[in-house]
Amino acid sequence: MRPIWPGLIEAYRPYLPVTEATPVVTLLEGNTPLIPAPAISDRIGRQVKVYVKYDGLNPTGSFKDRGMTMAVTKAKEAGANAVICASTGNTSAAAAAYAKRGGMKAFVLIPDGYVALGKLAQALLYGAEVLAIKGNFDQALEIVRELSDNYPIALVNSVNPYRLEGQKTAAFEVVDALGDAPDWLCIPVGNAGNITAYWMGFCQYHQEQKCSKLPKMMGFQAAGAAPIVLGQPVAHPETLATAIRIGNPASWEKAIAAQQASLGQFNAVTDDEILDAYRLLAASEGVFCEPASAASVAGLLKVKDQVPTGATVVCVLTGNGLKDPDTAIKHSNNQFKPGIEPTLASVAEAMGF
Amino acid sequence: MRPIWPGLIEAYRPYLPVTEATPVVTLLEGNTPLIPAPAISDRIGRQVKVYVKYDGLNPTGSFKDRGMTMAVTKAKEAGANAVICASTGNTSAAAAAYAKRGGMKAFVLIPDGYVALGKLAQALLYGAEVLAIKGNFDQALEIVRELSDNYPIALVNSVNPYRLEGQKTAAFEVVDALGDAPDWLCIPVGNAGNITAYWMGFCQYHQEQKCSKLPKMMGFQAAGAAPIVLGQPVAHPETLATAIRIGNPASWEKAIAAQQASLGQFNAVTDDEILDAYRLLAASEGVFCEPASAASVAGLLKVKDQVPTGATVVCVLTGNGLKDPDTAIKHSNNQFKPGIEPTLASVAEAMGF
Repeated sequence: MRPIWPGLIEAYRPYLPVTEATPVVTLLEGNTPLIPAPAISDRIGRQVKVYVKYDGLNPTGSFKDRGMTMAVTKAKEAGANAVICASTGNTSAAAAAYAKRGGMKAFVLIPDGYVALGKLAQALLYGAEVLAIKGNFDQALEIVRELSDNYPIALVNSVNPYRLEGQKTAAFEVVDALGDAPDWLCIPVGNAGNITAYWMGFCQYHQEQKCSKLPKMMGFQAAGAAPIVLGQPVAHPETLATAIRIGNPASWEKAIAAQQASLGQFNAVTDDEILDAYRLLAASEGVFCEPASAASVAGLLKVKDQVPTGATVVCVLTGNGLKDPDTAIKHSNNQFKPGIEPTLASVAEAMGF
Repeated sequence: MRPIWPGLIEAYRPYLPVTEATPVVTLLEGNTPLIPAPAISDRIGRQVKVYVKYDGLNPTGSFKDRGMTMAVTKAKEAGANAVICASTGNTSAAAAAYAKRGGMKAFVLIPDGYVALGKLAQALLYGAEVLAIKGNFDQALEIVRELSDNYPIALVNSVNPYRLEGQKTAAFEVVDALGDAPDWLCIPVGNAGNITAYWMGFCQYHQEQKCSKLPKMMGFQAAGAAPIVLGQPVAHPETLATAIRIGNPASWEKAIAAQQASLGQFNAVTDDEILDAYRLLAASEGVFCEPASAASVAGLLKVKDQVPTGATVVCVLTGNGLKDPDTAIKHSNNQFKPGIEPTLASVAEAMGF
């Protein structure tokens, strides 16, 4: 009998800020597959081995679950009876699912008219109450902060420090799967929390002698939303990779520290490069991710000549492609042939036989 | 260091028709979480323990991946250079992903005008060629059969016997997680392949003394598509649970055999009951599944008075809710409040504080 995965807090309890008394709120997140990527490896050659960490197979479909199991667990421990965030994407879905799992209310605060309700379908089905204010995103963020200061409401936006604690477990899983840290870790960078968390995880495991080395942290931003690459905030970030469409990352300084300490780099990739990688992952590796996730692979391919011969590279895929069906429909290499006669010969011919 | 999941064929190799020479095509499918469902357990009471087997966390988002890793692996072993299926749903997505993963072509044959292209977005992004014939679904099925007889093309529709071999591993995982078989296994029934496969798995594990008992197999069909419950095919099956909208199941006889041998039952649940269970799973357990998946929970709640006191019950959730965002948007208990003044007091009031 194989040991059963108990969720990431139980699995990595010694490394996380919990005690025996902590009421763990879990959907058995984590333990996502590290899938070999032979087609991407072939494009680089020189015995480079590429893997993708497919975090889209977390319970709500993104890596946010790793942070949210910790944040909501600690909120429950602290006696909160509600959680709140200002988010329209993966964070709101994860916050809603874990809050309800923990028997708490979930609130999502957004600017009026900011977003199509479809983006919030997941949070709404999980039972979140979505409040839209006559104001902008900065005002929403300010209000959620004030709310958590004045009411028994836990703020689970990226300012919540427990988020990164949970997210760092992805680095543990990578090391556990490979038997050591990879040589490179390629990762999409939006708010820059995940690159920070991975680095925390690798460093902690290294201190515990669970790995013999530390990876070069290679962060990739979308060209239209690349404040860290440019060295200054971007007032109006634009990219189809909505999950990393952020002009002023919350964890900017920490991400820079990780890059510098690891001798890594930040680079930008265009939306076209992201889409090429997105299609390559699906049609050659059989892995369907969010467009933003594909930035890690797009970036790796962009700087592939710098990868050391024989290196092991992990690309982080942060979200499930099913989160964004519109992009799949719009940007597949559509191979649809209608109007075929219903005979063996006609169909065989259409198939190229 | 925890042992790493190698995909279901490697994990259960002694129980599957593969040899050392078989070229395994895998996306590290299987190993999906068995999540405790306390809110559903509470609705039943009497110390009944309910779990959900969340197979929507397979790589393409449904249990079909379990069968497809086997079917495509055996197709590759047999020298096929293409796979084909007649399907518009989860099967086409899984077939496309595994075929491309295995370096083969993927074809999907459908009736012209039968389906919105959106339903095939996933298969198209995986690089499947979708062929639409001027004919109906029966003609499509006939042509895919003839194609696989006359060309080096593997048919991976439900007639492919390896599909059930792969799917039976879900029963192994349930036993491995619980330490024994559950008392009841509640499962949605469409084509009736999955209930057949689970029963195969439980029986095989029982013979190998991996479990001490066999579960009662409780199959649930949608009321508008309930041929097995009615005892006759349904000419025009109708239900919003599209994944089980089938009027004449391929594995009908085998499913009956499983039900009879296990002293189980078939029952029908209405679309309203399915939607109630769908919302309950999301908003109380934090688990987002396809509508068809929720039929297992709807059914359990419908016959809950028959569950023995203290029994262990597993409900199978076959697909990820992200597969069907339209239903989530349409059928959430929409709690959206627009137009709130951007002040702490106004927002707190809207939240009920």
